[in-house]
Amino acid sequence: MASSGFAALTHQFFESIAVGQRDETSLDATLLLASERHMSSESSPKPVLSKFSQRRTWASDQPIGYLMQQAVENPQCISLAAGLVDPTTLPADIVARAVDDVLYNESPARDALQYGTTQGCERLRRQIVNLLSQLERAPEADFSPSLGNIVLTTGSQQLLSLVAEVLFDPGDICLVAAPTYFAFLGTLAGVGARVNSIDADHDGMNIEALEVELSRLDRAGELPRVKLIYVVDYFDNPAGSTLSLERRHALLDAARRWSRDHRILILEDAAYRELHYDGPDLPSIWSLDDRREHVILAQTFSKSFSPGLRVGYGIVPRELVGPLSDRKGNEDFGSSHFNQQILASVIDGGDYQKHVESLRVRYRKKRDAMLRAAEKYFADIPQTSWVKPAGGLYVWMAVPPQIDTSFKGPLFRRAVDNGVMYVPGDFSFAGPHASRPHQFMRLSFGVQDETGIDEGMRRLASAVRTLV
Amino acid sequence: MASSGFAALTHQFFESIAVGQRDETSLDATLLLASERHMSSESSPKPVLSKFSQRRTWASDQPIGYLMQQAVENPQCISLAAGLVDPTTLPADIVARAVDDVLYNESPARDALQYGTTQGCERLRRQIVNLLSQLERAPEADFSPSLGNIVLTTGSQQLLSLVAEVLFDPGDICLVAAPTYFAFLGTLAGVGARVNSIDADHDGMNIEALEVELSRLDRAGELPRVKLIYVVDYFDNPAGSTLSLERRHALLDAARRWSRDHRILILEDAAYRELHYDGPDLPSIWSLDDRREHVILAQTFSKSFSPGLRVGYGIVPRELVGPLSDRKGNEDFGSSHFNQQILASVIDGGDYQKHVESLRVRYRKKRDAMLRAAEKYFADIPQTSWVKPAGGLYVWMAVPPQIDTSFKGPLFRRAVDNGVMYVPGDFSFAGPHASRPHQFMRLSFGVQDETGIDEGMRRLASAVRTLV
Repeated sequence: MASSGFAALTHQFFESIAVGQRDETSLDATLLLASERHMSSESSPKPVLSKFSQRRTWASDQPIGYLMQQAVENPQCISLAAGLVDPTTLPADIVARAVDDVLYNESPARDALQYGTTQGCERLRRQIVNLLSQLERAPEADFSPSLGNIVLTTGSQQLLSLVAEVLFDPGDICLVAAPTYFAFLGTLAGVGARVNSIDADHDGMNIEALEVELSRLDRAGELPRVKLIYVVDYFDNPAGSTLSLERRHALLDAARRWSRDHRILILEDAAYRELHYDGPDLPSIWSLDDRREHVILAQTFSKSFSPGLRVGYGIVPRELVGPLSDRKGNEDFGSSHFNQQILASVIDGGDYQKHVESLRVRYRKKRDAMLRAAEKYFADIPQTSWVKPAGGLYVWMAVPPQIDTSFKGPLFRRAVDNGVMYVPGDFSFAGPHASRPHQFMRLSFGVQDETGIDEGMRRLASAVRTLV
Repeated sequence: MASSGFAALTHQFFESIAVGQRDETSLDATLLLASERHMSSESSPKPVLSKFSQRRTWASDQPIGYLMQQAVENPQCISLAAGLVDPTTLPADIVARAVDDVLYNESPARDALQYGTTQGCERLRRQIVNLLSQLERAPEADFSPSLGNIVLTTGSQQLLSLVAEVLFDPGDICLVAAPTYFAFLGTLAGVGARVNSIDADHDGMNIEALEVELSRLDRAGELPRVKLIYVVDYFDNPAGSTLSLERRHALLDAARRWSRDHRILILEDAAYRELHYDGPDLPSIWSLDDRREHVILAQTFSKSFSPGLRVGYGIVPRELVGPLSDRKGNEDFGSSHFNQQILASVIDGGDYQKHVESLRVRYRKKRDAMLRAAEKYFADIPQTSWVKPAGGLYVWMAVPPQIDTSFKGPLFRRAVDNGVMYVPGDFSFAGPHASRPHQFMRLSFGVQDETGIDEGMRRLASAVRTLV
């Protein structure tokens, strides 16, 4: 089972490396905690300590103190690890104008600074319906009935976490692609879910393999434990793949067909959908489900606008609105109403779409820079390959299978010594550590500029070469 | 067991009544869901629906659709129900200045719009240390070591929820005062905790009664299931009481003494602490615990500044920092960094303390208005009594015991017909509905102005009189 504590900490870790932030106290606290955990297994007379829940145990225990230490000790590293947006694109001017709109008008100002509803502010939900109709290239009227099915969350991560909370009892099964988004593996571990992996390729999850796995589970009497199929179907994190249209239909069909004793849901994580650079413009699986019964569509403003505002959302089947809102009410009474109003103003004024357009232009150039650098520095290294993503922030690269890219293998160390960092691919696979593939790396072109990308790839290739 | 779904929904409900907000779609969705729930118990051929987790069941199932409907149908009501801050005090100008500070300086702007760390931004945590030293009237240096022990959350509700997540397995026990904060009862229900109630009076939880309950649990072999003692020790929601200094010491002593096989923690919910109007200035239980081992101190900027920013925090024992951060990482990767930076600017510029001062002056007047109205309209109703709170937003009133104040009793209906709403006191007690006390009302002076308070109290007294 993947560790969710790990996911949370690595998130911070890669982030602080990436943007040069230093948050010494939390870093110190984490390092100290890691060493205390280590020591506590050695000390003999046990002090009276708190007794944590089983869930806490599921969500902890990765020894990443060592790695964080490496990062702090190697600030010269170029990070190809962070899945962050480019800091130079962060829309300070646009936000400032929107805040003026919100605050210099007495009634909205009071609304924005008061509690909002748990489900989220209606003004923003209406605009999401409109954005959605643009993304799906369909009339807004087709989607208006979904207004009440939108739940606004603290980033789309909270939506993912709420879905896990309301669906999974310990031992229930989630089907994911191999590889898949590592933070969600942590969230699933935290609720005690079992994760079964399905093969994937350049077109995303292999639906024939999914059918085989569902048959196997059925024969084993485990079909009643299958609650959810999770896909990152636009420019996957980490694999960069996009689920083909044919597979979108086939996936929905499979979920329907195997929903025998209860409905098997699809969680369609479309976090990167708006960062689309080329290739076909695919409809969401959610839009293919005309009864809106099987698909939870998760999207976010974190990648397309600003992660610091922490606004994401889900468009969910009707029967999930109550459970998700109830759970969210217990967790926080609703996300920041102020930030929801800011985003509503940003979209209202037309700034949002312009900003997304400019991001597409910029990231497309950076993706091309990374692909050029891959060609330049890696093409002559045998058994090395990578995927050209049609959007998103990641290039998924395979190195020769004898090279272990994990934190425990030799490459990570040499890469750091060479001044570059990446996300080891093994994090993105479920199951026991030893049985996971170890020859992959997730490389992000999100944060670095073209020069940094080229230099980072040069350093990385030179580290790989020492092991071929 | 209290229902958490209920807590979340009533929160929205009282809120929308209070501030005259209308969020028709979510209201419609909730009403429809309530009626669907009702219908589904009658229909025979079951459709294939989603199968939710046990936790979802614990967090649902209150039939409040009827009540929400009452509220929507009676918009003329004066709400003495909402626990909201006064909308006229919401600090739009101060926030606007702080946003300018944050956004018109390139590096902070980028920082604020990027992801922050899960634990929260260090700049704000440093200022919290300083605020704390002012509240405790002690040198800042005494509290600096706690910088790494501060976890910033989405309102203090998220801190409460995170604590429940990392401590409670189903069947574990939380000890609470009777009455206590109803939203936390919902959160506890959502994780399957058992709630045992301890008698309380004008000085808060009766610590002798707590000792008796702990002895009883010990004899029953249940002491190992006791994880937490929860108190709202400043101007309690709902009781208005403040835990006396003597009891603060006694509570800490009890938690220490009964921590035999594991540490029993105290969750000190100090949400209203800064809304202090008169009476002694008491140190927190947290500050009395010189080793900082037993007390989680939860505070928030929601009551003292703006709920819409959703910034609260906990100062927690060292061993909880990792578990809470891991869990929060799984839930949302951290609360809005932008809002944390705004608050940091507000405090930095000195605006925060001035605002809190002005709130104290204003709410004190409104509290006095409510107490005057209580005297004026209720003094001659037999067996009616109320508590004078030294701070906070609530007056807790008992009516003659034969009057059932619950939604099911006659008073609520008559009050609504008279144009006034209150929070029925039974929500704030744990245990089966029938066994809870039913003669209490929580009355808030948060939202109404002095005229509204007087008129609301007049209407309420006249409803009570019809039942005496």
